[in-house]
Amino acid sequence: MRHTLATLEESKIREVANAGMGRADVLPFWFGESDETTPQVVSEAAIASLRAGETFYSHNLGLPALREEIAAYTARLHGGAVDAGRIAVTSGGVNALMLAVQALVDPGDEVVAVAPVWPNLTAQPQILSARLRTVPLAPGGDGAWTLDMAALKTAVTAATRLLVVNAPNNPTGWTLSAQEQREILDHCRATGTWILADEVYERLYYEPTPLGCAPSFLDLAEPEDRLVVVQSFSKSFLMTGWRLGWLVLPPSLTPHMGKLIEFNTSCISVFTQRAGIAALQHEGEITPHVTRHLRACRDTLLPLLQALPGVLAHPAKGGMYAFFRLEGHADALVTAKRLVAEAGLGLAPGDAFGPQGQGWLRWCFASKDPERLAEGARRLRKWLEKAGGL
Amino acid sequence: MRHTLATLEESKIREVANAGMGRADVLPFWFGESDETTPQVVSEAAIASLRAGETFYSHNLGLPALREEIAAYTARLHGGAVDAGRIAVTSGGVNALMLAVQALVDPGDEVVAVAPVWPNLTAQPQILSARLRTVPLAPGGDGAWTLDMAALKTAVTAATRLLVVNAPNNPTGWTLSAQEQREILDHCRATGTWILADEVYERLYYEPTPLGCAPSFLDLAEPEDRLVVVQSFSKSFLMTGWRLGWLVLPPSLTPHMGKLIEFNTSCISVFTQRAGIAALQHEGEITPHVTRHLRACRDTLLPLLQALPGVLAHPAKGGMYAFFRLEGHADALVTAKRLVAEAGLGLAPGDAFGPQGQGWLRWCFASKDPERLAEGARRLRKWLEKAGGL
Repeated sequence: MRHTLATLEESKIREVANAGMGRADVLPFWFGESDETTPQVVSEAAIASLRAGETFYSHNLGLPALREEIAAYTARLHGGAVDAGRIAVTSGGVNALMLAVQALVDPGDEVVAVAPVWPNLTAQPQILSARLRTVPLAPGGDGAWTLDMAALKTAVTAATRLLVVNAPNNPTGWTLSAQEQREILDHCRATGTWILADEVYERLYYEPTPLGCAPSFLDLAEPEDRLVVVQSFSKSFLMTGWRLGWLVLPPSLTPHMGKLIEFNTSCISVFTQRAGIAALQHEGEITPHVTRHLRACRDTLLPLLQALPGVLAHPAKGGMYAFFRLEGHADALVTAKRLVAEAGLGLAPGDAFGPQGQGWLRWCFASKDPERLAEGARRLRKWLEKAGGL
Repeated sequence: MRHTLATLEESKIREVANAGMGRADVLPFWFGESDETTPQVVSEAAIASLRAGETFYSHNLGLPALREEIAAYTARLHGGAVDAGRIAVTSGGVNALMLAVQALVDPGDEVVAVAPVWPNLTAQPQILSARLRTVPLAPGGDGAWTLDMAALKTAVTAATRLLVVNAPNNPTGWTLSAQEQREILDHCRATGTWILADEVYERLYYEPTPLGCAPSFLDLAEPEDRLVVVQSFSKSFLMTGWRLGWLVLPPSLTPHMGKLIEFNTSCISVFTQRAGIAALQHEGEITPHVTRHLRACRDTLLPLLQALPGVLAHPAKGGMYAFFRLEGHADALVTAKRLVAEAGLGLAPGDAFGPQGQGWLRWCFASKDPERLAEGARRLRKWLEKAGGL
């Protein structure tokens, strides 16, 4: 086995979850997933496709009809026309990210990632034998995380092949403003650096906007900019288990991405793609409901957390997570494991997202029943009262 | 974009197919896929799962119930007990191969592949920046391809990280005997080389055997041998479009493969995995029928090909392809494109599988209606009469 793989850290989220999975007395909030099933209209499209016998290989880049739907959806959100020739359908958002890294990163290349961040984003360049550096986000006194733009500009130089940025950010809820995206784009144009923008949480955005969508690099960039944007059906359409995502690419990159898809997974099941088409065709009935509900979840949980002694928490602008610090509990992995064992509460340790997250905990607030969140907060309060730490 | 990707050849099979796809007057035999839909009992298992709301993330390595079914199936075919802890479920056979290469190959490592072979097997090490060498199979005067074992042993040295071998072989139909597998295994044990055995055609085997299965490295190897075996539901269960396969791994490698799956695709849809469980539970009703039918297809097509002037063809021991040479037509890509344009016949050019296949054509004989094969052979005869070349 490769040394790279042997030393690649297993997800600390999985480490905590494995310790508590299958235990009926644990309330799990560790994964980034709603507990609502996929809307019926979406599942029924897959069922109709299966019954029609659509069980054969399909195009590497996805069904033309799905690519057209995605292009139209992208244009609705981000303005201008987006050609379907820029879209590649992938086996989920994580697969889209991996394909992008395979397309762009040679061994020894320098990759810069803004962290804390979902660990998959930093693992992928390592699998491709790149040299990884991080630009740290930092929490303010109110618990809100911000980017030091000067530090990012210092880190990203002509030697930087790829900048990886996930905003709205998992786990912190930090988002990029349009102004910051403009600065980053201009800087990367100057250095010749590719931007890999993981924008899968764009629709889970709680600031007032006309379209219900976080700022995107796609709002600013030209088609042939060195920009690859990753999207997914998972969060906005309650489709985590379907493994369906997409890439928005410079047109010249798309045929090459088709080759990479051939060599990685060949294609996506047609019936899964039919579900994707149905999801986009019913987007107006699905996504705004999802976002409204998640905002209500956030606004249920946050005051409960903020009311606890020693908790530093700030409402996320986007995403589906409360990211908070517990004073007096410096080792997040230890804390998360204790919470499972002693409180029946399943959270993700902040250091799973990089050392910047040490001492913090991530709580996925995507809960069909907000009462589950309140019960979780009660368990945390009881545990804090017993375990102390203040 | 990486130079590696820019220069990576697009599949010549796709190049021919793209020239003829959507044309109703072309009989397509270019892809490695039957034209029979998935058995209903399999699709219905997925539908039941969807209706039950199984639309969430699942384990990186696959559902425990599916891993158990696969382990039991593997043990039935290859003797001894196979622990489910050695099984990783993947997004198709090609994804299994890619994950194995990611797990084993560092940049600059030497990889040796037996060729001609499905081009994905030689593309994957290049994506991982390995140095690729090939050991050529060679055709005899009767059109049957064989391995020069001495050449393989010379090529695979202590400097060789990985040997990639696909038998039964796509495209040639060549298979490894148990004796040859023993020699290769002993040699690779001595050199410390990993074997990546693509055995997805093992059940499409036409020699008399008690179990209806080609010889496998799993019949001989110890669990901790440096051996990774790739399998797929695609061919044996008429499930190409489902993208479901698996790896049989040394037990110590499995947890690390779980990490790689997390970083590549995270997991496979639960409803797809339920279909896999149903397929294995109904294997006795499905696979022997598939193999019997494919044998009949082979035995329909081969005599028709052999009766044509200038055709050199030998019945494949395994797989789903007739691989034949057309005398007087040295450039297979040109020939394949002409056949599409002038004869309405869609075949894959042999040089798509490496330079060893130049001048040969691959015909996938997996046809629900054998009369399609006869019609194809008539088209080829007519074209040969007109185009000549002898």
